[in-house]
Amino acid sequence: MAKRITKRSEDYSRWYTDVIAAGQLADYAPVKGCMVIKPNGYALWEKMQATMDKMFKDAGHVNAYFPLFIPESFMKKEADHVEGFAPECAVVTHGGGKKLEEPLMIRPTSETIVWSMYKKWIQSYRDLPILINQWANVVRWEMRTRLFLRTTEFLWQEGHTAHATDEEAEEEALKILKIYTKFSEEYMAIPVIQGLKTEKERFAGAVRTYTIEAMMQDRRALQAGTSHNLGQNFARAFDVTFQDEDGKVKLVYATSWGVSTRLIGAIIMTHGDDSGIIMPPKLASTQVVIIPIIKGEEGKNEIFEYIEQITISWNGKFSFKVDDREGYRPGWKFNEWEQRGVPLRIEIGPKDYEKQQVIMVRRDTGEKNPVPIEELSIAIEKALDNIQLNLYKRALKFRDEYTFIIDDYEEFKTKNDDPGGFFWMHWCGKTECEDRMQEETKATIRCIPMDNPYKEEGKCLLCGEPSHERVVVAKAY
Amino acid sequence: MAKRITKRSEDYSRWYTDVIAAGQLADYAPVKGCMVIKPNGYALWEKMQATMDKMFKDAGHVNAYFPLFIPESFMKKEADHVEGFAPECAVVTHGGGKKLEEPLMIRPTSETIVWSMYKKWIQSYRDLPILINQWANVVRWEMRTRLFLRTTEFLWQEGHTAHATDEEAEEEALKILKIYTKFSEEYMAIPVIQGLKTEKERFAGAVRTYTIEAMMQDRRALQAGTSHNLGQNFARAFDVTFQDEDGKVKLVYATSWGVSTRLIGAIIMTHGDDSGIIMPPKLASTQVVIIPIIKGEEGKNEIFEYIEQITISWNGKFSFKVDDREGYRPGWKFNEWEQRGVPLRIEIGPKDYEKQQVIMVRRDTGEKNPVPIEELSIAIEKALDNIQLNLYKRALKFRDEYTFIIDDYEEFKTKNDDPGGFFWMHWCGKTECEDRMQEETKATIRCIPMDNPYKEEGKCLLCGEPSHERVVVAKAY
Repeated sequence: MAKRITKRSEDYSRWYTDVIAAGQLADYAPVKGCMVIKPNGYALWEKMQATMDKMFKDAGHVNAYFPLFIPESFMKKEADHVEGFAPECAVVTHGGGKKLEEPLMIRPTSETIVWSMYKKWIQSYRDLPILINQWANVVRWEMRTRLFLRTTEFLWQEGHTAHATDEEAEEEALKILKIYTKFSEEYMAIPVIQGLKTEKERFAGAVRTYTIEAMMQDRRALQAGTSHNLGQNFARAFDVTFQDEDGKVKLVYATSWGVSTRLIGAIIMTHGDDSGIIMPPKLASTQVVIIPIIKGEEGKNEIFEYIEQITISWNGKFSFKVDDREGYRPGWKFNEWEQRGVPLRIEIGPKDYEKQQVIMVRRDTGEKNPVPIEELSIAIEKALDNIQLNLYKRALKFRDEYTFIIDDYEEFKTKNDDPGGFFWMHWCGKTECEDRMQEETKATIRCIPMDNPYKEEGKCLLCGEPSHERVVVAKAY
Repeated sequence: MAKRITKRSEDYSRWYTDVIAAGQLADYAPVKGCMVIKPNGYALWEKMQATMDKMFKDAGHVNAYFPLFIPESFMKKEADHVEGFAPECAVVTHGGGKKLEEPLMIRPTSETIVWSMYKKWIQSYRDLPILINQWANVVRWEMRTRLFLRTTEFLWQEGHTAHATDEEAEEEALKILKIYTKFSEEYMAIPVIQGLKTEKERFAGAVRTYTIEAMMQDRRALQAGTSHNLGQNFARAFDVTFQDEDGKVKLVYATSWGVSTRLIGAIIMTHGDDSGIIMPPKLASTQVVIIPIIKGEEGKNEIFEYIEQITISWNGKFSFKVDDREGYRPGWKFNEWEQRGVPLRIEIGPKDYEKQQVIMVRRDTGEKNPVPIEELSIAIEKALDNIQLNLYKRALKFRDEYTFIIDDYEEFKTKNDDPGGFFWMHWCGKTECEDRMQEETKATIRCIPMDNPYKEEGKCLLCGEPSHERVVVAKAY
């Protein structure tokens, strides 16, 4: 049902949870930190899954499924990995009414279980590369949770690949980063900055972590996907070697990479307005909703026949729904579909029937126009394209507006406090400076950008020592 | 790599695990009772998912996602349910390094968590029906496990619907049973018997459980899907009421239904032969494999150009792969693809090129025929249809062969011990007789068949008391 949504200007955080409730996207589960993904939210996730799954498969990947449970001892085999993940793990101690001999961790990520299997599957260079992805649920025990953004259990995909050489692994990690970027910009309509994580922010067990970073409407950064070159760390931990063409026995190289249901949060916070979520047309399970404007029984049959006549040739062109529910006023329906984020609304009343037209309303701009029925199908396709494009452009403009090239620490602090944004600043490369900045400003280095337009000499904003390029800094989700 | 498969006649149980290993379908995970579903097995599951998902959606269902964790107290709210499932639960006692206040069960099935949410979502008759399905992993602590058939963790879909009336719930439960039957017979090519479970075999918390039962090649029954009319049991346990059109407050009616990755086991054991699994064409991710017959470099380019020319128009018609791996003999490839279950093989050598033909080999019959290339595309489509049909017919014939109308308990015991089969027998309806039979013969009542052709008067095979129809009895997985 239509619900009141707090204005963004009033309370951004309440706006976010109101949008999720009003859009019927998710609900709080009885277990602390867990969520129920409701049908409207899950339909979005299904579209995202289908799109990315095709991209992964076109790039030669196959899907598989690894178990939920990881023996505690496995987690301990890679030193950085256990340090990073063990504190967040949920632990199963009993099964079938008995205490287990060895406690089982619920996967927070699957590198350890995957590499214990790759040990069995890899003997020769002929067994490489392995390009496996899985769609799964994972659990990380979070203290402060938010629907979609940070939940104890979440859904994601995790790729785990094995390669004969370091170059191949690096190539794979970058190939995936490109897929994530393409998906983010072309489908989610979210512009992102691609870059390398600093050592401090790197995945626990990785040699290099690549990331895509997006700006939300409250000017915070959101890490939208990561791709890791794991080097030989997991091969070493699980003793996974192969006999190469030259007859020598070598350690295998690895990557892993993932995106999760937090991307739904990114869509809400990039495109949403005071009326709720806006679904990017390419990911909307319902792209067009048709609402008949009828008073009682009068002219009802004519309107529905008119709708039938209009929509009969639409199948396969775009997805649409006719809201023929009785006992709800049209205004109430407008509101509900707005809150559900459907990109395009078609209103059809008796006057429209007379004029052989419909009223078309864009969700992103609120623009309302009569369209003659003979032009409708093309007008809809055009409007959907325009909305997709407009969402991207609007987000890019917003990010540009709150992006600052900054060379003064005090100025940075002021701007970072209010209104915040992305700050391109010089940094010397020392974790010490990174730590201090985070402590003093709550901002972190989001990434060292790739194809960096600011590869230039300068001085670290914190210690004044030489820096050879700017990095991107922001407060983050 | 190609592996030796034990003959069915030698050791059926070893044959089954050999087929899974050779077909690269699954592997044992390090945690007892868990499995890794390998890419070839997972691709089959993905096809099964996509097919059923469309059937559910066409029937008005939507997908959602409920959490993995269920508070222990929830499980206890429905008396039969807790008795049935609590002993099989895995229990999380620690999270984030701390002991939890209330232990969490990992879902063995989601009725309790779903109905705790439906309590929040349902107020009025307008909120009904709710037709939700979810694709998820579940955990049941099993003592004796077998890959696909009975694993501690498995993948499945579980539908959970809410209705205003008993009639609607019953209609839904039966509608789903029909979908399962259609999927089983038309896609998996497995004939099934639809029926009602006895009180003893009913789902823990259900009023009525419907089932589809298939016969495996060792003549055991496999329960391939169940659909439950839950009556008001879960609404009562979670106090889920709604205000009806007549203004009265009423308890909601429910169904739940599921099929799981055990269906992969059913496909193996219905169609497999001594060379491995046979994928039903409609569910094969690769329907046709093309193997070039080349000696060294001689004529290699011609053959690959010939293949290119043949396959250029195939996209969208059927799925195919060209096995262009170097360093493997054709015979080795034949064997590997046979073991992976690909329904149709096309061999192309220099002689075929000369004659402008190919050699087509059916996986189900081994039939080997030259086909002129101008007829090939149609011949393949026809062959795939024929294989699909032949698999079904073969399975049906096998089931008929080992189905017995039986009126003598001693004869039943003899036949049940060797070779086994489906026994249509009279039963009085008492759990006492059911228990005794199971104890003495290990066979169980699989179902009371629907549209029962043997609705006739008779005497219970065990106690001699009157019976009004025959039931289907078999040893089961």
